[in-house]
Amino acid sequence: METLKEIHIKHTRGLLDLIVLQFLNSKPMHGYQIIIEIRKTFGIYFGPSTIYPLLNSLENGGFLKSKWEINGGRPRKVYELTAMGKNLLKLTEDSLNFICRTLRKETM
Amino acid sequence: METLKEIHIKHTRGLLDLIVLQFLNSKPMHGYQIIIEIRKTFGIYFGPSTIYPLLNSLENGGFLKSKWEINGGRPRKVYELTAMGKNLLKLTEDSLNFICRTLRKETM
Repeated sequence: METLKEIHIKHTRGLLDLIVLQFLNSKPMHGYQIIIEIRKTFGIYFGPSTIYPLLNSLENGGFLKSKWEINGGRPRKVYELTAMGKNLLKLTEDSLNFICRTLRKETM
Repeated sequence: METLKEIHIKHTRGLLDLIVLQFLNSKPMHGYQIIIEIRKTFGIYFGPSTIYPLLNSLENGGFLKSKWEINGGRPRKVYELTAMGKNLLKLTEDSLNFICRTLRKETM
């Protein structure tokens, strides 16, 4: 049987784009910071092989922009939301809210 | 750019197990009813090639049980939740609620 942990990992993975967009909406961050923040907030470790391709794909889509900064003595790519990224975040939140609201109605 | 529709389809697909469990928690249904109900509630058509494998996998996992009923003149497999299914539904809802709550805190 699926455990709560497995279910939780699956849903968090499914909403990872939304999570990353929300983190970056609060402040610009580099990839490793995002990994740490997800582990701290959701108790789940998604490694570089998950997070970096997601950041690349969001940047290629025009939702993020990045610049190199020297951080703790080494260069790191720092990401922030573009206007399109903010728009995507809004759409994504609306969609999730709609589903959550609809499911709540369904259970009443 | 991803449209709202695409985002919405992706999230609904990601939460399809939760949606099916909630529908079946309200009343036993056959597969085609579930397809109709999802389209009516979420405005998205997931066909038999998505829904039937999901129902099979939930039944094989012990979360659903089924029986054949004659319905509109033809035999249909009607599904309902098992005790394990109700438990899975609870865990899945808890996980989604946790993510939704955490994301809301994150935006404040």
